Amino acid sequence: MTTATTTDDFATLLDTTAAETEALLGTLLSDAPMPGEIARPRRLIEAMRYSSLNGGKRLRPFLTVASAEMFGVPRAGALMAGAALECIHCYSLIHDDLPSMDNSDLRRGRPTAHKKYDDATAILAGDALLTLAFDIITRDEVHRDAGVRLALTRALARAAGIGGMAGGQMMDLAGEGRFGDREPPDVAKLQQMKTGALLKYGCIAGALLGQASKEQYGALDAYGHAFGEAFQIADDLLDVEGDAAALGKPAGQDAALGKTTFVTQLGIDGAKARLRDLLQQADAALAPFGSKGDVLRAAARFVAERQN
Amino acid sequence: MTTATTTDDFATLLDTTAAETEALLGTLLSDAPMPGEIARPRRLIEAMRYSSLNGGKRLRPFLTVASAEMFGVPRAGALMAGAALECIHCYSLIHDDLPSMDNSDLRRGRPTAHKKYDDATAILAGDALLTLAFDIITRDEVHRDAGVRLALTRALARAAGIGGMAGGQMMDLAGEGRFGDREPPDVAKLQQMKTGALLKYGCIAGALLGQASKEQYGALDAYGHAFGEAFQIADDLLDVEGDAAALGKPAGQDAALGKTTFVTQLGIDGAKARLRDLLQQADAALAPFGSKGDVLRAAARFVAERQN
Repeated sequence: MTTATTTDDFATLLDTTAAETEALLGTLLSDAPMPGEIARPRRLIEAMRYSSLNGGKRLRPFLTVASAEMFGVPRAGALMAGAALECIHCYSLIHDDLPSMDNSDLRRGRPTAHKKYDDATAILAGDALLTLAFDIITRDEVHRDAGVRLALTRALARAAGIGGMAGGQMMDLAGEGRFGDREPPDVAKLQQMKTGALLKYGCIAGALLGQASKEQYGALDAYGHAFGEAFQIADDLLDVEGDAAALGKPAGQDAALGKTTFVTQLGIDGAKARLRDLLQQADAALAPFGSKGDVLRAAARFVAERQN
Repeated sequence: MTTATTTDDFATLLDTTAAETEALLGTLLSDAPMPGEIARPRRLIEAMRYSSLNGGKRLRPFLTVASAEMFGVPRAGALMAGAALECIHCYSLIHDDLPSMDNSDLRRGRPTAHKKYDDATAILAGDALLTLAFDIITRDEVHRDAGVRLALTRALARAAGIGGMAGGQMMDLAGEGRFGDREPPDVAKLQQMKTGALLKYGCIAGALLGQASKEQYGALDAYGHAFGEAFQIADDLLDVEGDAAALGKPAGQDAALGKTTFVTQLGIDGAKARLRDLLQQADAALAPFGSKGDVLRAAARFVAERQN
């Protein structure tokens, strides 16, 4: 029997994967060195743990696990790939929060890494989490096939690097007018790079793990693309309409920084209309998977409707 | 006919590999996105190029190329692996120079990345170079065997991350007394992590590319270990006895920061004696390779005797 996944079912699935990811990251971030490592200095591993073991929603690993599950991929491998992806996400939050970047003091209701430790420790904790991701994604436990692990590794580097997330953060800072005349950025492209690339990677990683057909890979690519933009529009709307207590950070930050967002570009009503379109696109993209796609359909609804 | 490599021969070999590496990095750091990338923002690729296309000695890529050559590995693959390693080295220089780290304004006689651009751009350029290294090392051109490329990738992550270079930088900062009571660090362990791990990786990468036997791998591991310590002792001696003009940066920085080095620990004469021991160790480690090891023997002499 297959039934559409309800909101409550989805919340339970998300919580379960988040708990598994949290436990796995806790193990991966132990203070015992791996073969080839010399030692794991205490202050650095503590800062890495502080910044990544914090009960986040683990949306990116969830996308990997849920996508991989459609192909019957063993859960342990998908969780490992998801943990690598989450290390990249956590590193990006640490570096984005630095005084010379977004200068944020709070993250999920707690002091950011550089407030809790210091700037140098925060930079190194980010660097080390980024590097650890590429250790994790190559491990045998991820997938039995070396070619699959290599494809996962390279796609992760491209999603995270100059042509993806890091490049997107650069464009975001340039869009604030830091480096001369302020020129409103191409919001859709900026989002695709800064937040979209990692979210889409979550879906593509599932396809790679599942050794998907070209059609299936394309379907998950299209779903991930729509999901990423929906996520960002919901984020931009929350910054305008959201509640600081639920967010765990101040609302109105985008306006304070003079950022160009989907909301400043489309207006609130326009952004909401675009969000509805994207949900339909995400839904349509999953057609080749039939009812197996219900969990990912629920995930798209979840990000569109979330309150934090 | 085989002859021992002279100092002049060695300088030519080093220059040739440096020029090849510089050209390859120039191509890898083009502004055209690779498949899977969305765009390469101009300011970021410029900062990455500024920080890596600067005529360095390219000692780490040289170690990879020279080690790989002993196994008859095609040069193009070894140069690619060396370029990935150099991206890691260049990222580490950018981040180490930041105001919150070593606060250096000059590097190789030019303004450091954060002086030329700004702190945020420098942090992102470092992040993106680190990430690019893991893109490069996975590419088909590195080696035909996917298993070899995976081993190269994982070993690179472990040499660069918390259990290697990043961890070493953390220990170095802690040793300056930044985070409370100043406790003199274990200099040998700190060096092994901060500078030794990447230098040793240069040698190990050659062994992996050459699908070395266990004995050969062990020999290059031992050589790389001795090479790394010799490199650091020579560096510490240069900081005391060297010439700022030749160094391209001020001498006496270690003393100014109150750093514990091999020289403060062993004295100048003790450090020089240790350096001679290490050269003998490096030489002995290469015994299994016979005269094929002459280039690496010359490399060890070169780092011990260098003036910058």
